[in-house]
Amino acid sequence: MTRRRYYLEDVALDEAIRRFETALERVGGLRLPLAEVVALAEACGRLTAGPVWAALSSPHYHAAAMDGIAVRAADTLGATESQPLQLTLGTQAIWVDTGDPMPPETDAVIMAEHVQTLDETTLEIAASVAPWQHVRPLGEDLVATELVLPEGHLLRPVDLGALAAAGHATVAVRRRPRVAIIATGTELVTVEEAAKRTLEPGEIIEFNALMLAGMVNEWGGEATRLPPVPDRKDLLRATVAEALDTHDLVVVNAGSSAGSEDYTATVFGELGEVAVHGVAIRPGHPAILAVANGKPALGLPGYPVSAALTAELFLRPLVYRLQGMVAPKRPVIEATMSRKLLSPLGEDEFVRVALGRVDDRLIATPLSRGAGLVMSLVRADGIAHIPRFAEGVHAGASVNVTLLRDAAEIEGTLVAIGSHDLALDLLASHMRRLAPGTRLSSANVGSLGGLLALKRRDAHLAGTHLLDEATGIYNSPFIERLLPDEEIVLVHLAYREQGFLVPRGNPQGFAELRDLARPGVRFANRQKGSGTRVLLDYHLNRAGLSSDQIIGYEREEFTHMAVAAAVMSASASVGLGILAAARALGLDFVPLFSERYDLAIPRRHWQSPLLEPLRRTLADPAYQAAVAALGGYDVRHMGVVGPKHAPPPA
Amino acid sequence: MTRRRYYLEDVALDEAIRRFETALERVGGLRLPLAEVVALAEACGRLTAGPVWAALSSPHYHAAAMDGIAVRAADTLGATESQPLQLTLGTQAIWVDTGDPMPPETDAVIMAEHVQTLDETTLEIAASVAPWQHVRPLGEDLVATELVLPEGHLLRPVDLGALAAAGHATVAVRRRPRVAIIATGTELVTVEEAAKRTLEPGEIIEFNALMLAGMVNEWGGEATRLPPVPDRKDLLRATVAEALDTHDLVVVNAGSSAGSEDYTATVFGELGEVAVHGVAIRPGHPAILAVANGKPALGLPGYPVSAALTAELFLRPLVYRLQGMVAPKRPVIEATMSRKLLSPLGEDEFVRVALGRVDDRLIATPLSRGAGLVMSLVRADGIAHIPRFAEGVHAGASVNVTLLRDAAEIEGTLVAIGSHDLALDLLASHMRRLAPGTRLSSANVGSLGGLLALKRRDAHLAGTHLLDEATGIYNSPFIERLLPDEEIVLVHLAYREQGFLVPRGNPQGFAELRDLARPGVRFANRQKGSGTRVLLDYHLNRAGLSSDQIIGYEREEFTHMAVAAAVMSASASVGLGILAAARALGLDFVPLFSERYDLAIPRRHWQSPLLEPLRRTLADPAYQAAVAALGGYDVRHMGVVGPKHAPPPA
Repeated sequence: MTRRRYYLEDVALDEAIRRFETALERVGGLRLPLAEVVALAEACGRLTAGPVWAALSSPHYHAAAMDGIAVRAADTLGATESQPLQLTLGTQAIWVDTGDPMPPETDAVIMAEHVQTLDETTLEIAASVAPWQHVRPLGEDLVATELVLPEGHLLRPVDLGALAAAGHATVAVRRRPRVAIIATGTELVTVEEAAKRTLEPGEIIEFNALMLAGMVNEWGGEATRLPPVPDRKDLLRATVAEALDTHDLVVVNAGSSAGSEDYTATVFGELGEVAVHGVAIRPGHPAILAVANGKPALGLPGYPVSAALTAELFLRPLVYRLQGMVAPKRPVIEATMSRKLLSPLGEDEFVRVALGRVDDRLIATPLSRGAGLVMSLVRADGIAHIPRFAEGVHAGASVNVTLLRDAAEIEGTLVAIGSHDLALDLLASHMRRLAPGTRLSSANVGSLGGLLALKRRDAHLAGTHLLDEATGIYNSPFIERLLPDEEIVLVHLAYREQGFLVPRGNPQGFAELRDLARPGVRFANRQKGSGTRVLLDYHLNRAGLSSDQIIGYEREEFTHMAVAAAVMSASASVGLGILAAARALGLDFVPLFSERYDLAIPRRHWQSPLLEPLRRTLADPAYQAAVAALGGYDVRHMGVVGPKHAPPPA
Repeated sequence: MTRRRYYLEDVALDEAIRRFETALERVGGLRLPLAEVVALAEACGRLTAGPVWAALSSPHYHAAAMDGIAVRAADTLGATESQPLQLTLGTQAIWVDTGDPMPPETDAVIMAEHVQTLDETTLEIAASVAPWQHVRPLGEDLVATELVLPEGHLLRPVDLGALAAAGHATVAVRRRPRVAIIATGTELVTVEEAAKRTLEPGEIIEFNALMLAGMVNEWGGEATRLPPVPDRKDLLRATVAEALDTHDLVVVNAGSSAGSEDYTATVFGELGEVAVHGVAIRPGHPAILAVANGKPALGLPGYPVSAALTAELFLRPLVYRLQGMVAPKRPVIEATMSRKLLSPLGEDEFVRVALGRVDDRLIATPLSRGAGLVMSLVRADGIAHIPRFAEGVHAGASVNVTLLRDAAEIEGTLVAIGSHDLALDLLASHMRRLAPGTRLSSANVGSLGGLLALKRRDAHLAGTHLLDEATGIYNSPFIERLLPDEEIVLVHLAYREQGFLVPRGNPQGFAELRDLARPGVRFANRQKGSGTRVLLDYHLNRAGLSSDQIIGYEREEFTHMAVAAAVMSASASVGLGILAAARALGLDFVPLFSERYDLAIPRRHWQSPLLEPLRRTLADPAYQAAVAALGGYDVRHMGVVGPKHAPPPA
């Protein structure tokens, strides 16, 4: 098998944009789509294709502006409270409703409540009126031929009102730029297909095109998702060539690298000019900027975080420019970095961060940087940019963060850093139901990391399940040691079951801890320092078992899921973990121990209005029932405050 | 004809909301719509109906994270640059592409560029690797059963990616609240109908429902515009009753006052409970807050500005609450009021303002306050709230303004205050084409008002056409007098024709100024101090004509359009005005004089980057041609700087 080698360039970001612009200029620049005419009711969010002039004046006649009588102002002269004036109905005064045309020769309206009816034909007024009082003269609002809206105006509901008032039933708007999204990869399976059957290893659900199409539509474009193209150059070339004929912009995802089955750059090169192949950014290095058939053609990398970033950097400006607009600048704020972040010299790095205000500081916590982590896109509140001449950022340093979320939403965010648990996810969900403006941002760094985050004042709360082996007491010994100067409220969330993860049907019949010492058992353990390892050692000790007796005790896996995966793939016969991990991979679960999962919260936060929704949610029977329904949880003491309320049930 | 009298309440805004809430509570509060399941591609912008858990892990197998060879990390121990290690292809090393499943027993990937091919079966590596290097373990991104999104989450494109990766092809979202918009009024004509025929006086184009429906959709609701209902109680009642059965919220516009044909409150009262009828706000007093069939029912006033304001105050929160959300707070900024504003005690007044930054101050200029002025909705950048216990705001006072537009857009706004002209509207339109981020906000206060605005530093530029009768020179004498300490650049825009506005066909054959003195002529003049009046007097004087000779010289109209309307209605046989006024009403135009229309611009603004697009536009042949094409304009000196370049052509 012959392998092609990587020959990606390392073009600096600004230089890449320059080269791409030059290539575009060579073909005469971007070609803006023509206008189209749409009905007003369909026009919201569209851009006017040219200035719009009033076809009709508004009002198009002199109109009564009040319910009352239309009069000639001259006829009312001299009327006062002491010397009221009588007017004859029909000749000197005519009843009108708001909006009625002014009868001929009349030039003012007297409000109904200022008119006294004396008899069928005689009215009395107690004040004179000026000409044009309570009259909307023809064209008061809009004069025919007047400008209603300039070109390039983004149509809002009020603009539709003005256009209609000006006599228009339709409006010429710029056609949305048509953007073809071509997913490529033999391994791709559509979401619809994936929902119908079990995926084979190596098959990947196609979700980037869905995400990219959503972005294009959000930016004002009209995205077409074409069916995924297998890794064959001829097929990709035919699809791209056809898409270039019928769209204003073509995006291929992925095949943008330089591997043996990466054809995107080759195809672009055959159909036009590749301006850049490889940008010195992280993530997103294997991006392609090309021009073909006089149109921009982008190759975006396959990892979702890379695809999202390169779409933001290269696709977003194009979609706006194809509408004759400048992409609106996203707001940038200053935040304090909660952790040290290393970044390679020579690459512009874009790190997604979670944001939250703790005390008076806005804290930015970097999310896991794997380019494949679509959940980091979901969890991100902003993007920190680390320029290519910087080697990283110190913890506590100030960074500029481009906001992906409303600033107000970030101010309403509760920051949880520590051990993560499903019950915390449910808490986030239920809290939103009780208090829709509130949000829980939750970073998983383990129990100890959470307490240290509280010490650094980086979080409002920390989920923790630290068992003190010497005393058998959870959490409080650690808090006393680590946070001696801070008053911490320890709020109980739930007892959580840990147990054996075993193949479905539990063929080896695992039932109690000492079964680990049985012959033929291959155990998969967790890493030293993890809560589950501490729990195991504590209970082995209590049961008088030695680690020497357990085959596989030395095999360290780093997550509950890794243990479950080892059992599923039969490289281990049993592991220790939580019910959720067993469920996730369809394993059986044998409950063994109950451990205590608490929330450690500094008192100043616990009592703050920001945490009021959290306090309410913990007391909400619906939330308690939902956690209990997860399975593997005991919620009997949820919300109880203080370290000593109860040991975990035996 | 019997007239009903007004019996509207004057309920303070906060008390109105309280009463309405109490009425809602009596029927058990708002009933939230149920969930519905939609395909991912349709889900952007919707809210999750419940927490969404991963159905599948991502990746759902251990996956190669790089193109290269899959190996057992243990097999690579000891390899170094100086002592490379050889691996046998097929047994110790297997080529994999990114995304491929890891072959059984392998646990690491070595990147292709770090592998040397020796022969068909032998590879060489120069470094050892750690287990799991360049491997994405099963569930690295998402573990099946893990929370993907909480309840009430607004779905963005990245969320669709995560949902797809988690094995979902559809998602349960909250159904959009269905809002019925019922326009009522016998005088209403739909936009479609209005586009087909000439409107009669008294007929009004129905545009409020179009605007309200657009707003409801923008806020996340699903608006249905029902066909307009004539002013008949039985018809309105039947329509409202049916709408209440099939919608979550019903809006009637208008008939909300207490006039003889205002049935909205009566119908709401018969079908449920009217909590408030008449709120002490301006505009929008005759609003109705009711509950019928267990659902909210609003009666909004008929004037568009009143309808828009009451929709913002009462409808917007309801549409969001029906989605289980809190309506996002609009940003509020502090601005300097450019004019004094009087406001009645006892009413909360909401005044639409135009905003722009001039020097270091954000200037708020109140727009005309007529409730019927739909263009004030279009032009507004924000809303200033004058509380009911205040009598107004002084010029120069600081006010809080709720923003209706992006803050960045306001920073890019050129503020023009002064005499208004169509060519200025075209300038706004063309400037946007050249520089999409720029906006021209233009307030019409007359030439003199514009120069005074420059003096107060409230504007960047002022359109002016002030003729000095003594010297026959335009603008500069006034600028020297009014702005002696400021260096003003006088930029010529165009010469503008003034002439006779006469009935179509010019039956009386008006040709020159002295024709005004002919017997049988009824002239309509402009008010003293207007530019057109000054121009007339100047030319009468030059022609040796006396005002005594002209019948109607004393008849003062206040706008070009009012003069044109007088001619159209045959109450005058001739008037003096601009071509556009004649065109607007289908009159003929006899050009007489050319007047000079300039832009007065302080030098510090003229040279600023903010005005660069304006400088470019004035030099743009496309703009010049567009102004010339308007008719009645001479653009030969457009953009020439300085007061003395040329007199208006004779």
